[in-house]
This record gives sequence, structure tokens and C-alpha cells, in this order.
Amino acid sequence: MNYSQLRDLIFRKKSFLCVGLDSDLNKIPKHLLNTEDPVFEFNKAIIDATIDYCVAYKPNLAFYESRGIKGLQSLEKTMHYLENFKDEVFTIADAKRGDIGNTSENYALSVFDKKSSGFDFDAVTVAPYMGEDSVKPFMQFENKWVILLALTSNKGSLDFQHLRNTENNNRLFETVLQQSFTWGGNEENMMFVIGATQAAMLTEVRKIVPKHFLLVPGVGAQGGSLSEVAKYGMTADCGLLVNSSRGIIFASSAMDFADVARLEAKKLQIEMEQLLNEIL
Amino acid sequence: MNYSQLRDLIFRKKSFLCVGLDSDLNKIPKHLLNTEDPVFEFNKAIIDATIDYCVAYKPNLAFYESRGIKGLQSLEKTMHYLENFKDEVFTIADAKRGDIGNTSENYALSVFDKKSSGFDFDAVTVAPYMGEDSVKPFMQFENKWVILLALTSNKGSLDFQHLRNTENNNRLFETVLQQSFTWGGNEENMMFVIGATQAAMLTEVRKIVPKHFLLVPGVGAQGGSLSEVAKYGMTADCGLLVNSSRGIIFASSAMDFADVARLEAKKLQIEMEQLLNEIL
Repeated sequence: MNYSQLRDLIFRKKSFLCVGLDSDLNKIPKHLLNTEDPVFEFNKAIIDATIDYCVAYKPNLAFYESRGIKGLQSLEKTMHYLENFKDEVFTIADAKRGDIGNTSENYALSVFDKKSSGFDFDAVTVAPYMGEDSVKPFMQFENKWVILLALTSNKGSLDFQHLRNTENNNRLFETVLQQSFTWGGNEENMMFVIGATQAAMLTEVRKIVPKHFLLVPGVGAQGGSLSEVAKYGMTADCGLLVNSSRGIIFASSAMDFADVARLEAKKLQIEMEQLLNEIL
Repeated sequence: MNYSQLRDLIFRKKSFLCVGLDSDLNKIPKHLLNTEDPVFEFNKAIIDATIDYCVAYKPNLAFYESRGIKGLQSLEKTMHYLENFKDEVFTIADAKRGDIGNTSENYALSVFDKKSSGFDFDAVTVAPYMGEDSVKPFMQFENKWVILLALTSNKGSLDFQHLRNTENNNRLFETVLQQSFTWGGNEENMMFVIGATQAAMLTEVRKIVPKHFLLVPGVGAQGGSLSEVAKYGMTADCGLLVNSSRGIIFASSAMDFADVARLEAKKLQIEMEQLLNEIL
């Protein structure tokens, strides 16, 4: 999916919601545990319940890899199921990968090359610590996206991401944004992770990347505010994918979990529709 | 495996060689492609050929994940085979993981908790960009190790890792080393990746972490020198695991690949034995 397709999808569905499929086997409703693949059944129900209200799904690979091969099978089935909605949703492998060049090439195959790995995500999250050659291999796929970690939503983001360097006084996350341009990153092939818990920083971010899409985690369970994110981060093309994981998928752990997830997703979609109307 | 066991293993085998199992299906000898699981057959032959000369194996997960579930099966079989040599080798999941706390907990299960994921590595490589809560969950397992990226061997390491911060003029990789102490990291549960291509920097590194083990990639294919690494990085307990991947496992792609790998590993081991003798 390319930039204009994603933009159109957002305005068509009046939503910029990304649902995080952090489908922890220990947290999904107990009545699903008797099924052959509880995590897939859970994801399928969540997708059916929320697809009218979101534009993206983001499985976090950790929650699948923690169950080894079985987990990967649940993920494969989930992504296969999502193929039924090919033009309706953008898919993100939240993997935070990054290694030296020839290794990152293989990580890219693991999420982007269906023939090689069975997976065909639209985008992957990538960690920037190892620099240019760790990121570039993910950028060699047409209509696929790198979502580079810049300013994350967690407490540990304070450890390194805000350090100012002696060369130009920029903070590390600002340097990451700037460096990505020199790697061939642009608004057609790159997004950035900017945590909602640091919404006020979005003004600074937008000075450097005025048009890029931002993937914004941290709304909901982590305490970020949607209206703040939109206020400081929205562009004329929306330019935002706001993620909610636990706040939607684990809103209820009872028989009604999918209905409650639908309500939570709808609540966010209604708020997003209002925010989108303001830029139309 | 704990610190003293690893130290003893090194002096017993007179080697601090780590063999990187970057077992790319496209690079392994063609005659293996007719077997049921070529990558496993390749790894098994490499392990049998090199185990007398090394103390560690480091599968790089990218080369398995790029083949999806099949790749993970090859990795599982490889690790199962390595259980036959439990006290003879240290195992490293080269995964470069790191995410917010509850997610990193799941990545930790994916490499350390056999019951959950099928995998039971001794150590995992972790990327530091997201800070404390992204690293700590990997440190909750007894006798398991975090190997934190500090100064990597690739060209992209110049992009961010050498930036000096305005607070104390330290470079980012130095700040990573220092911060890890405040997270409870010590020489019993943490190592650092320091690339051999930057061997002269090891003097700076040893000022901050005089005793920690360092995992040193970049010898061989990437151009680093073993004697330089030992000169600047070795401690009284050795304190080094030097990795070679392509230089050993792909030294020949003919029928004799295992024999040639054995010779290459032996060559390094002999050099290492001399270097170890100097500190006895």
C-alpha cells in the first residue's frame, strides 16, 4: 500500500486507528483456550469486530515468538485471514528489527517476502541504533514501509533518545529523523514511531518531518491523549496512525470480549472522525 | 551457564571462539539441498566439525526467520542437537531484540523459556535504543545473559554510536555501557557487543567495563584483527568471545565444507591458545 492509498483509506474509513494485536495467550478470554488455535480465534474475532473502525493492524511479534513455532503458526493464520481485507487495512509487523546489512536483508524477507517466509506485511518497525546499513535493506521493497523508532512511548525512552549531541545540540531522536533522509527515506517509504506519551514533542518532530506518517503508540493503557496527538501531530493528509492495543483487545476478558473491543474501537473512531473533519 | 563456568570452559578448550550460524539457505553447499532440512544438516555438520575448537555458537535469527516456520524448525532442531553438548558450549540467540517492558518479557520467553517457546539459549543480543525497561526483562532469568549492543562492527555504527552528548561529552556507546550498571547489569549477567573493526576503541571500552565479557563480531569477513582485539580487550579471565561466521561456515561451498570449516576454526583456536597462554 502506498502513501496516497493509505491517505485515501483513512479518509474513506474516517479513522486513523491501528489495532495492536498483542495477543498474549495468558490474557485472552479463557473460553477460547479449548479451541485448536486460541490466539488465531481471538485475533479473528477481534478483526471481525474492529475492522469497520480501524485502518491498520499491528501484530507485535514478541507475543507470537514467545510461543515458538506454534505462535508463528497463529500469526501466519492471522495474516492469511487479513488477506480477505487487502484494500481495507494496512498491516504492520511490530518487530523492532535491525542488524548489519546482509542480516537486515534476511529480516526484510522475514516480513515482506511471502514466498520466502510466508509473510507479506505492508510495514515493519526498525530500530535505528546500528545506522544506515541496518535500515536500508528494508527499504528495497516497493510499496513497503520502514517505521523507524524515533521517540518511543516508554519510560526508557528518556535514557538515550533525548541526549543532545555536541555537534549541533540536536537530540538523538532528532538526529535519527534527519539521518533517515540521507538513507533515501522519504514520506513514501518511511514512517516514524513517536510515542503519544510525549505528544508535546510532536511539534518538534513536525519541524523535521512535516509530511511523514507517524505511528503513535501509547494512547490508552500507556496514558497518551488522542486529541493532544492530533493537535500537535496531524498533517493535511492526516499523517498519523494511532495505535491502541490492550485498551481495545483486552477491554473485556469475558464472552463479550469482541463486542467490547468493537465499542472501544468505535469510540476512538468517532473521536478520530471529528479530528479528521477539522482538516477537510 | 554462569561467569565462572564460561571462564573455565574457555581455559579448558583454550579457545574463545564463537561460531556464527548465519546459515543462509542460498549459501550452503548445493549437495545438501536434497536433504529434508538442508539448513539443519548444514548446521549439524558445522557443529560436529568445529565443536573442538570453539566455546560458543551464535545462530543469527534473521537467517531462520527469513524462511518463516520452516526456518524456525531448522533452528529448533539445531538447538536440540546442541543440547548434546550442554557443558561444552555457550549458546547465543543473535536477535537484536528490544521493546517496551511487557513486550520484551515476551521476547525473553522466546529465547530463554523452553516450555514456552522451545528455546533455551544462554544469551540474547539486545538493542539499547528504548532504554531500561526494554532491557531489564531479559535480565530476570538465572544464569542467562543479555548481550547489549554498544559499538557494532558495521559502517552504520558511525551514524549514532559515536555521538558525544552535551551533558558529559561521552559518546553514545559509552553512555550505553554506563547506563547498564544502573539497570542492575554486571559481569555476571551482561556482556556487550563491541565490533572488532573498531579494536582500538576497546581501550576506551575497558575503562568503563574492565571485567565484562565482550562479544566481538567482525573478525574475518568484516576485516577485524584477532590479535588487535586481544591486545586491547582481553582481561585476566579472557573476557572475550570472538565471533566468526562467514569466514568459517562458508569457507568452502563444496563437498568438503565441514573439513574446511574445521580448519578455519582450528586456525583461530591455535591463535587464541597463544593469546590465552600470555595471560596464564
